Amino acid sequence: MPKLNLSQIPFVSRCSYPGKLAQPFDGRSNQRLGDASGLTQYGVNIVRLEPGALSSLRHYHMQQDEFLMMTEGTCTLIDDDGEHEMLPGDCASFPAGDANGHHLVNKTDSPAAFLVVGTHTQSETAFYSDIDMMVRSGPDGSAFSRKDGSPLTADQIGDNK
Amino acid sequence: MPKLNLSQIPFVSRCSYPGKLAQPFDGRSNQRLGDASGLTQYGVNIVRLEPGALSSLRHYHMQQDEFLMMTEGTCTLIDDDGEHEMLPGDCASFPAGDANGHHLVNKTDSPAAFLVVGTHTQSETAFYSDIDMMVRSGPDGSAFSRKDGSPLTADQIGDNK
Repeated sequence: MPKLNLSQIPFVSRCSYPGKLAQPFDGRSNQRLGDASGLTQYGVNIVRLEPGALSSLRHYHMQQDEFLMMTEGTCTLIDDDGEHEMLPGDCASFPAGDANGHHLVNKTDSPAAFLVVGTHTQSETAFYSDIDMMVRSGPDGSAFSRKDGSPLTADQIGDNK
Repeated sequence: MPKLNLSQIPFVSRCSYPGKLAQPFDGRSNQRLGDASGLTQYGVNIVRLEPGALSSLRHYHMQQDEFLMMTEGTCTLIDDDGEHEMLPGDCASFPAGDANGHHLVNKTDSPAAFLVVGTHTQSETAFYSDIDMMVRSGPDGSAFSRKDGSPLTADQIGDNK
């Protein structure tokens, strides 16, 4: 049935970042509405952020449009332009290839949530604005590296640049 | 800036249905968030329905995934499974090619609104469930016809089947 039974779609906490970079994401969980309902052309997720949690490392996508709408609580959108308060109903767009790295942080004492849409593409490259890391994704999965393509090492992961 | 200034994005009332089929859509308006913010891979619109207004004629898409989330008020989702009340936060998914025609109707005395996402594709065919009509869209625009491809006539438009 087209109307979703949201109570039947689980929230999943999983972070693919390598090493200690994954640690700040314990308070983030995703409800994968698009995957659960048969959409294949774009992902639609509800992202829930507990107090103090981050949506992602600050990043931008080369091939995939991204859109979000706040649905609950208050978050701070951090991008190259500074910090922007996001309340329920507030929206943000990140066109593919726009090198304005962004993420949301829940700086409040209450849970927050937003709806996010991202195109499904055959391949994708994303760059992380605050560390020397990129990720390439394709049919065989995702691989993190330095921005010059060289491997990350245990020492390098988490280096601020 | 990625955060959208929603007050600067106009609501537009425009209906491309031919002839008298366009008449029931005076109470519908669209705020084209995706177009206004440089997204090209999918459309993101806020659709506002005044009391009594319809989102569209009941239809389904062959090439384009569609997703919606209610953001204000109450609507009735009508599809092949019946009628379903949609409250703020409720969501629905319509995968491309799923022949379950759908639309939303505002049966209340207050305005209602929802966020809707639809893939941008090179071409598209949509079928209307309750009348003998289809629409084909491509680089040269959109053309409405009967489902067998023959032209609509003034008499045919609005015929219930």
